[in-house]
Amino acid sequence: MASTQPQEAQKASKAAQDSWRIPTPAFPEPKLRVYNSLTRSKVDFVPKKPGVVTWYNCGPTVYDASHMGHARNYMAQDIMRRILRDYFGFEVNFVMNITDVDDKIIVRARQSHLLTKYLSDLSSSSVPPSSRLLQEVSSAWTAYFLKAFSASLPSPPDAPSDSSLSSSSFESAAQGWATVQQLARDAAWVEQAKVRDEKFPMYFAAVGSGFEALEKARKRGEELGSLEDVKALVEANKDAMGLWLDKQFGASVTDPAIFRDLAAFWEDSFFNSMSSLRVERPTTLTRVSEYIPEIVSFVEGIVARGFAYEGGGSVWFDTAKFEGAEGGDKGAEGEGDDEWRHTYAKLQPWSKGNRELLEDGEGSLTSTTGKRSAADFALWKSSKPGEPAWPSPWGPGRPGWHIECSVMATAVLGEGMDVHSGGVDLAFPHHDNELAQSEAFHNCRQWVNYFLHTGHLHIEGLKMSKSLKNFITIDDALQKYSARQLRFAFLLQNWNARLDFKESSMQEVRGAESLLNNFFALVKALAAEAKEQSVASDGQHHYEQAEKDLLAKLESAQLAFRAALCDSFDTPTALQTVLDLVSQTNIYLSRGRSSTNVRAVLAVSEWVTRMLRMFGLGEGSPVEGPTGERVVGWGTAPEPGQEDAGVDRDAVLMPYLRALSSFRDQVRQLAMSNAATSDILALCDRLRDEEMVELGVALDDQDDGRAMVKLVPAAQLRAARDAKAALAAEKASRKAAAAAAAEQKRLERLEKGRVAPEDMFRTDEFSEWDDAGLPTKDREGNEVNKSRSKKLAKEFAAQKKLHEEFLKEQAKTQA
Amino acid sequence: MASTQPQEAQKASKAAQDSWRIPTPAFPEPKLRVYNSLTRSKVDFVPKKPGVVTWYNCGPTVYDASHMGHARNYMAQDIMRRILRDYFGFEVNFVMNITDVDDKIIVRARQSHLLTKYLSDLSSSSVPPSSRLLQEVSSAWTAYFLKAFSASLPSPPDAPSDSSLSSSSFESAAQGWATVQQLARDAAWVEQAKVRDEKFPMYFAAVGSGFEALEKARKRGEELGSLEDVKALVEANKDAMGLWLDKQFGASVTDPAIFRDLAAFWEDSFFNSMSSLRVERPTTLTRVSEYIPEIVSFVEGIVARGFAYEGGGSVWFDTAKFEGAEGGDKGAEGEGDDEWRHTYAKLQPWSKGNRELLEDGEGSLTSTTGKRSAADFALWKSSKPGEPAWPSPWGPGRPGWHIECSVMATAVLGEGMDVHSGGVDLAFPHHDNELAQSEAFHNCRQWVNYFLHTGHLHIEGLKMSKSLKNFITIDDALQKYSARQLRFAFLLQNWNARLDFKESSMQEVRGAESLLNNFFALVKALAAEAKEQSVASDGQHHYEQAEKDLLAKLESAQLAFRAALCDSFDTPTALQTVLDLVSQTNIYLSRGRSSTNVRAVLAVSEWVTRMLRMFGLGEGSPVEGPTGERVVGWGTAPEPGQEDAGVDRDAVLMPYLRALSSFRDQVRQLAMSNAATSDILALCDRLRDEEMVELGVALDDQDDGRAMVKLVPAAQLRAARDAKAALAAEKASRKAAAAAAAEQKRLERLEKGRVAPEDMFRTDEFSEWDDAGLPTKDREGNEVNKSRSKKLAKEFAAQKKLHEEFLKEQAKTQA
Repeated sequence: MASTQPQEAQKASKAAQDSWRIPTPAFPEPKLRVYNSLTRSKVDFVPKKPGVVTWYNCGPTVYDASHMGHARNYMAQDIMRRILRDYFGFEVNFVMNITDVDDKIIVRARQSHLLTKYLSDLSSSSVPPSSRLLQEVSSAWTAYFLKAFSASLPSPPDAPSDSSLSSSSFESAAQGWATVQQLARDAAWVEQAKVRDEKFPMYFAAVGSGFEALEKARKRGEELGSLEDVKALVEANKDAMGLWLDKQFGASVTDPAIFRDLAAFWEDSFFNSMSSLRVERPTTLTRVSEYIPEIVSFVEGIVARGFAYEGGGSVWFDTAKFEGAEGGDKGAEGEGDDEWRHTYAKLQPWSKGNRELLEDGEGSLTSTTGKRSAADFALWKSSKPGEPAWPSPWGPGRPGWHIECSVMATAVLGEGMDVHSGGVDLAFPHHDNELAQSEAFHNCRQWVNYFLHTGHLHIEGLKMSKSLKNFITIDDALQKYSARQLRFAFLLQNWNARLDFKESSMQEVRGAESLLNNFFALVKALAAEAKEQSVASDGQHHYEQAEKDLLAKLESAQLAFRAALCDSFDTPTALQTVLDLVSQTNIYLSRGRSSTNVRAVLAVSEWVTRMLRMFGLGEGSPVEGPTGERVVGWGTAPEPGQEDAGVDRDAVLMPYLRALSSFRDQVRQLAMSNAATSDILALCDRLRDEEMVELGVALDDQDDGRAMVKLVPAAQLRAARDAKAALAAEKASRKAAAAAAAEQKRLERLEKGRVAPEDMFRTDEFSEWDDAGLPTKDREGNEVNKSRSKKLAKEFAAQKKLHEEFLKEQAKTQA
Repeated sequence: MASTQPQEAQKASKAAQDSWRIPTPAFPEPKLRVYNSLTRSKVDFVPKKPGVVTWYNCGPTVYDASHMGHARNYMAQDIMRRILRDYFGFEVNFVMNITDVDDKIIVRARQSHLLTKYLSDLSSSSVPPSSRLLQEVSSAWTAYFLKAFSASLPSPPDAPSDSSLSSSSFESAAQGWATVQQLARDAAWVEQAKVRDEKFPMYFAAVGSGFEALEKARKRGEELGSLEDVKALVEANKDAMGLWLDKQFGASVTDPAIFRDLAAFWEDSFFNSMSSLRVERPTTLTRVSEYIPEIVSFVEGIVARGFAYEGGGSVWFDTAKFEGAEGGDKGAEGEGDDEWRHTYAKLQPWSKGNRELLEDGEGSLTSTTGKRSAADFALWKSSKPGEPAWPSPWGPGRPGWHIECSVMATAVLGEGMDVHSGGVDLAFPHHDNELAQSEAFHNCRQWVNYFLHTGHLHIEGLKMSKSLKNFITIDDALQKYSARQLRFAFLLQNWNARLDFKESSMQEVRGAESLLNNFFALVKALAAEAKEQSVASDGQHHYEQAEKDLLAKLESAQLAFRAALCDSFDTPTALQTVLDLVSQTNIYLSRGRSSTNVRAVLAVSEWVTRMLRMFGLGEGSPVEGPTGERVVGWGTAPEPGQEDAGVDRDAVLMPYLRALSSFRDQVRQLAMSNAATSDILALCDRLRDEEMVELGVALDDQDDGRAMVKLVPAAQLRAARDAKAALAAEKASRKAAAAAAAEQKRLERLEKGRVAPEDMFRTDEFSEWDDAGLPTKDREGNEVNKSRSKKLAKEFAAQKKLHEEFLKEQAKTQA
């Protein structure tokens, strides 16, 4: 074989490489299984297109603030969505709707609109005669009482007749109130009332305080005059007034914007709450109000297939006809299995015909006109005046609740989906009806493959309700706990179990949070030290038994974590695995700084960080610095009720804090060794001129002793510092030059004074001198003339002075 | 069925829920396959423990700056590691070694040390006579030329004889140079020289310029006197001088720190370069110098199995004996298949016996004394003077190159691993020898299941080399291109193909970068608008055909992307899929703002963002704002050569900097007023216990005087501080109580001493006393008996003492 031809050699090699054998895994690969409400068991998770998950989630009906029940649902769904995407690597098309057409919205919007209008009419008109107002409030209250009474209570033995309550006088209201008060003393009756409607105690209390306000106002009689009083009275009887006004004027509320604005307001509020909880936005968001034409065609389709009928301007789903009807061969899962039949109530077959649940699903404004069987439900509801309406083949109307989801899910995801989710209380009738409609329309056998129902929420063991006064909005909760704490608490429960939200669990969460915070802080400190002392890290890149054990623990934790999440997203077990690993690592760390292999600890903390962030427990940026290195730790959560600046404080702050700490270290050491204060001052200068300059911090010392602090690019500071130093050097050199010149002058002067004045003229120039040494005759023997003599005397005097200086200096240097 | 009993109903439901069928995927799930050098084909990727990948990567030999060849390898490995972890969801234990014991390091460290010493000797001594220096440089050059000539060139027809060149005079150097210059005019000869050693042109040029400098200096003769001239001369002949000095004095370089310091310097430099390229740190890092004892035992193990022998103080691997030797039944992949034989050179069987490759693998300082066959290789090398040495059963020596990886991989990963990677030029002999050693030691059949070799790097179609002057360090490259651009360019090539780094590809990269930047900018602007005008977004939550098409394109891209990455990490196809999707989305966007469904576009851009960041192409934080929302877009890359600012440093830093500055202010003022050092220490404590606590900074003072700095929630710090203070307060209060009790006792004692002893018995109880005041007769006039008298005297003495104390105290307080 020609070895000079590498390509041929490579070909030859294939033949020679015959020894490789495909590895046999040590244990079977764990498969994701999920608890499916359609089987009430855990089943293998098989998406229709491998790697991609289509998911429809029931979004909120937007008419009020989001509460902890919402948090429980949407957080659980968010966690599962993140696990599927960020842990199992699926691409998830997460579709969610906003229900902005609904009887609850209609009623709330109309009442709120009418109350606002009533109050604004009161404000703009002169105050009405108090007697008229009293009568109106009284009427409202009576109407409200009647409603509460007839809707919520079993008929009591001696209930006041409708006729005795129908008069809108205060007396009739008082009579009604007295009767109920009497009944309320009968514990058995109250118990029965609560079974019928758990909100009874709340109604009772509200009616009571409303009646009190009414009675007080009545007693004051003519004094009831000021606008404030009137407003307070209306406010105290808001529920009753809202109902009463709605009854009188509801039909007149026709502007669609009134309904839309309320929904838009609460939709915004919902997403704000979700953002605060770090619940990610859906991939695809749909609004019912934007799908009316599709809903109409969808209903037409069901009618065409014979599973729905028109009645009273509404369209009803024919459950009896659907149940057991022969299906086509169109269902994605029905191939090769030609005979199959439609099934109604796949999720809760035992709830079929549960009238109370069915009625609740239909909405408070829905009439039953035209409905053939109590088990049937509305696909399209004819609208009365004061209800939003869209044109349809059956006259003006609006969609039923269940059909909305069938249509939007179909519009976005087509003829079926992998996952559908929602709160467990939606299972029947909402989801069962949705399935029936969709399978009827698409003539398919299994419209949804996996139905995931998130569990209930309890507060300290009790159902959350306004009547129990344990109703907590998301905003309330966030004043007391951080979003991370709430999420942590939710992760510690299975998504489909009942979640009991209680203070004792939150204490547990705080404990776990501290464990993790302390762990990350320690690891970060160690890593930073190791980075600064890279030579000192010598000898710490060796894996002894302790490090091998630690990494083996990490691997076990990783495998246990995977097994837990494969077991229908068992987050409590997974999270506990993480916490246990941290505790085990703390034991390793307790051996002390010097026997710690920092990279082994980082391997643990990096995985822990990644898993916590995968769950959505991270704060701030998961990467840091110009090189985008992965951050160790889950970031610092803002205190509950506080906003977060949103940066990775660690990465940004640490260099500065290390400078601060090191400055303090040195000050302390100098102080402890009783060093000279000048050393401490030198340290202060060095901090300003060296460390801070390099960190881009200007410390400008001021006269008052308080330096000014600025962030300035380091290069600029360096230049300024160096220029200042150069200037100082130049000044010093000029000063030195001047001093040298002065000295030179002084020396010259001294030198000039070396000759004594009496000797200074004893030169060839003259021939005779007087006793003092002043010339009297010049070289030629002529007398020195007067003017010259005067000049010479002056010179003599000057020299005398110089010579005296000279003698003085001489004496000084000789002393 | 009792519908009032929900639990029974639920049980019943299981029977009723009989219709669910497990979904059938539309197409088979794509499996990850990787190109395995052990088969030279793509094979299914099956890790030994599902979900976990153990990976050993050959790290750098640290003796010089990292270049683009390193970038190509480590970036490719980083990309595959990220894909495995962040896309496929494996946990990867990525182990890498630092080779800090190696002949190249030894030679470089010795030469650099000797040159520095030579220059410093020159500086400190008086300038030597130029003639002596000339002679020395000339000698050095001659020796260098001889080496280059004999090692790199085929013997030319009329080569000067060794003897004619051996004299160290300038004339002999000149003669040698003239000969080579003459030969260099013969193109065929040069071509042959290049085949033998591609660095020939570089040697030639270096020798030429060195010779020129030498000749110039010689012509100047006696003028060659200044230290600068001498240094310049040495610098110009650095390579030659280094070799010459090493030959003369190399054996005297024995301080281990000289070798370690060079390695530590270049290890730091390597990781800095990797950080700049966003190549993540290994999970586990090992250094050869910290594994010598393990290496010795490993070699002993191979000797014990009979596959190695000692010779000349070294230990050699016996390739002939290993080849075909019967293996045990220990190999993880050998179960149920009892008979198998060891194979040598599994990766490149056709390279067996390639002497040039084998010699290159042995290192320049290795002697062959004791080696029985040319195909054998060193496990342990006996060290000559001037080479670092560790004790061993075979005398002082150091590890061979290949054994290092066998031992460290074994130490961390045990008896085998899923993946081993390295540059393709390491396949033979390094990796083949490593496999042989490890399989010999562990008596296993398949030590590595997947061998991934990253491809070569070419520059504008040519091999990169210093001689071709196309040698680019990573720092050079980063001056011209951003880390993102480099990574993008690398992603556009398959990891195991030859990568041609050329300007035209970089133009392509810039084009793609612009496409993405523009896309993200547009999407972000649209999203911001939609957020501001939530009511205006009405009508934009509806999925028309265009949106359905867009989401279908997204899904296709996701599936194609997965298929590409499953196909042995085919990043060029995957990245092209992303770019195509962006182009298609741009077509959708071109229909204009008003007909754009922002969420549909966000669904695309979120996926694109996530995939780009998964590849390591992201800049800055992938999340933003207080709610940690996922950022759209891959961030803004800093200009090549620029550092990134990243955050609003002002807001984050200022509180901390103000604390630092104010601390410094106070320290300065105390120092200026010559305050007591205790005041300064109190200031240090207050900084720790007050200011820093409120800022959430823990300063933990340590015994060594260097506090540990951590960011910890303020609440936690406050609690810890207060608990500490409470403890201290309790201690203080206990102390105070004890002091108060003592004082009380003292006062009582003083009070007791108020009565003078002579007065103490003057009571009714007695009737007569002596002069001192001691009773002589009792109330009844009887003599006080002896025993009582004794007792009274004792009491008297005690009172005398107490009274003296009282008087003393009184005097003190009156003074």
